[in-house]
Amino acid sequence: MRITAIHETTVPIASAMRNASIAFDAMTASALAIETDCRIDGDPVVGYAFDSIGRYGKGALLRERFLPRLLAADAASLQDASGLIDPTRAAQVCMQNEKAGGHGERPGAIALIEAALWDARAKAMGQALWRVLASDEGSTARTPTIATYGSCGHFRPGESLDGLKAEVNRALEAGFRLVKIKVGGVLPDDLHRIEAALAVTGAGCLAVDVNGVLEGSSGEAWLRAASALPIAFVEEPSSALDYAGLAALREASRVPVATGENLFSLDDTRNLMRHGGLRAGSDLIQVDPLLAYGVAEYRRILAFAESQGWHRGQFWPHAGHLYAAQLVAGFGLGSAEAAPDASLAWGGYWDDCPVVDGRITLPELPGVGFEGKRNLLAALQWWRSR
Amino acid sequence: MRITAIHETTVPIASAMRNASIAFDAMTASALAIETDCRIDGDPVVGYAFDSIGRYGKGALLRERFLPRLLAADAASLQDASGLIDPTRAAQVCMQNEKAGGHGERPGAIALIEAALWDARAKAMGQALWRVLASDEGSTARTPTIATYGSCGHFRPGESLDGLKAEVNRALEAGFRLVKIKVGGVLPDDLHRIEAALAVTGAGCLAVDVNGVLEGSSGEAWLRAASALPIAFVEEPSSALDYAGLAALREASRVPVATGENLFSLDDTRNLMRHGGLRAGSDLIQVDPLLAYGVAEYRRILAFAESQGWHRGQFWPHAGHLYAAQLVAGFGLGSAEAAPDASLAWGGYWDDCPVVDGRITLPELPGVGFEGKRNLLAALQWWRSR
Repeated sequence: MRITAIHETTVPIASAMRNASIAFDAMTASALAIETDCRIDGDPVVGYAFDSIGRYGKGALLRERFLPRLLAADAASLQDASGLIDPTRAAQVCMQNEKAGGHGERPGAIALIEAALWDARAKAMGQALWRVLASDEGSTARTPTIATYGSCGHFRPGESLDGLKAEVNRALEAGFRLVKIKVGGVLPDDLHRIEAALAVTGAGCLAVDVNGVLEGSSGEAWLRAASALPIAFVEEPSSALDYAGLAALREASRVPVATGENLFSLDDTRNLMRHGGLRAGSDLIQVDPLLAYGVAEYRRILAFAESQGWHRGQFWPHAGHLYAAQLVAGFGLGSAEAAPDASLAWGGYWDDCPVVDGRITLPELPGVGFEGKRNLLAALQWWRSR
Repeated sequence: MRITAIHETTVPIASAMRNASIAFDAMTASALAIETDCRIDGDPVVGYAFDSIGRYGKGALLRERFLPRLLAADAASLQDASGLIDPTRAAQVCMQNEKAGGHGERPGAIALIEAALWDARAKAMGQALWRVLASDEGSTARTPTIATYGSCGHFRPGESLDGLKAEVNRALEAGFRLVKIKVGGVLPDDLHRIEAALAVTGAGCLAVDVNGVLEGSSGEAWLRAASALPIAFVEEPSSALDYAGLAALREASRVPVATGENLFSLDDTRNLMRHGGLRAGSDLIQVDPLLAYGVAEYRRILAFAESQGWHRGQFWPHAGHLYAAQLVAGFGLGSAEAAPDASLAWGGYWDDCPVVDGRITLPELPGVGFEGKRNLLAALQWWRSR
């Protein structure tokens, strides 16, 4: 199995919304398609990957460093003993002569390549990706039915609390039971926002995302006030890399804390677990495999976490869409995050797989199954019409 | 003062050498030139920046995200009250709508832009950059004479200990008194390498760089053995982000430990100081401003460090060349690192400023003074001949 062509493009996903830390006016994402010489029913196997949202596309690094290394590699150096492309070996080739540390854009670029090759490999094996991942771990207990939650409620110019309530209600109507909204880290405004959303979801079915803006005693006051309301968890209370600051804030929250979407490596996640004051029995880790070197690194993260008393159910990967859902099922993780609006290429799930009572059953399509979500597949096949 | 044009290019600096972690076969660096409408003696002021070496050029991110934001900004949003370009404000414009965390390639791209604008600003003021930086802090104690040390002794195919000794000797002949060589983290080979180099430098005038490969009990054994020899310091014993691992290794060293070249932010440096087990009275911090968001972030790092009992003399920035030397003088830091071979664009110092007894006196050229090093200036003026 050899790579025959690679296509990548940057997709504009600009939106007039913001969270507590950034606006999305000029946001982009990368789409990647890797063609192979493997054929199924006469058609070449193509592996796809579509970026996580929020840290801009990875095209620049893909073009400048990683795709040239992949294309220059001997085919044998990318394969396992069976002759299939081994995504882990391919990612190692891409990382040749890269210094340690500095986990920023690079982990997302490497993860995209690895993800497209996992899609291709699972297709070549004729299996859904989650089955391949579970099988690689020798697990027979995994199932294609997973928990999911809806993430919405960004800040939009001129939006009222009624607008927020309508958006949360749309998520419930789409089948989600747990809904997460953005808050600004500001009292008492956030309490009104939370109470408005809770009136729609009911107690325990709302989470809030502070996007890292809390700190010090005012942050502790915010957490004490917000966590007195019946919310499921508070996401990213403080700056991603301020572990000591997080440890202090953690004490002020009566509900679980979720964090990790801005940590892109085992190195950083290990530091979070060592120094962040999180509780292995209740808090949630949201490291996003598609921004953090991919499957191989995520396995290392899970192995370290389990050695420290964490359970896989406490891993709720950030951002998601189809690829993350495959990993949630394949690794037996807690829940997959989704933008509820399936009319977006990066929102919702497969066209024929509705969210029902906060759960979804993955289809039996080979690979990630991008072929089962028409608007996302169109974004991944732009190069076919050229 | 307005930006009128920006030129950037990727310079190949491939070399058949390696350290303990990577090879430099395909290494690149970015060169950046920012033209302004400010004129001195009729010529437009141009600000230059040349990359630090070891983590590849930043051109992709410069072109994809940061230079477009800079060029789209209102001129007034980049200026201070006097109308001069304020590099700190310009860097903030480039960082608009960037999420926190993930300090990898981005800090190097931002730092390059800020560095070129510091060069332009200091030129517009008619002063050497170190004077501008010292003046901004209200310091009158800084001088243009600084300590420097030579960094060489990479691994090269087929090289003998005699070759290493000859290279160290060339550094001494070039005026350096403290010389750093690469080691591999392997016993007893490294001890032979260190003893060979010590025979040239004399006791206390040699440092060694492990490039992050030590860990656990074998790492402790290496440190006990190597630090029994009369070396000045051991650089980067362990993986950059494994603070707990570093804290354990630190106990095994009888000589100071230097580290930080792969930490690119205040966030990460603060974690190093909180969790890395370093000794504020003796160990060395090597965070490289040109890879770590530049002058404004470095000031924040110094402020935090001083609040924790660290002294500026313990800051020895990585990699260096002319820009880092200006910061060492302007901030009153401990020592500037240089590749001793001045025939390289990124080696040595200004053409007319010899290293004498391990010290150098910066010239009275405006800005960084790239105009005083012919081979580096040529690399920065490639666009003039187009």
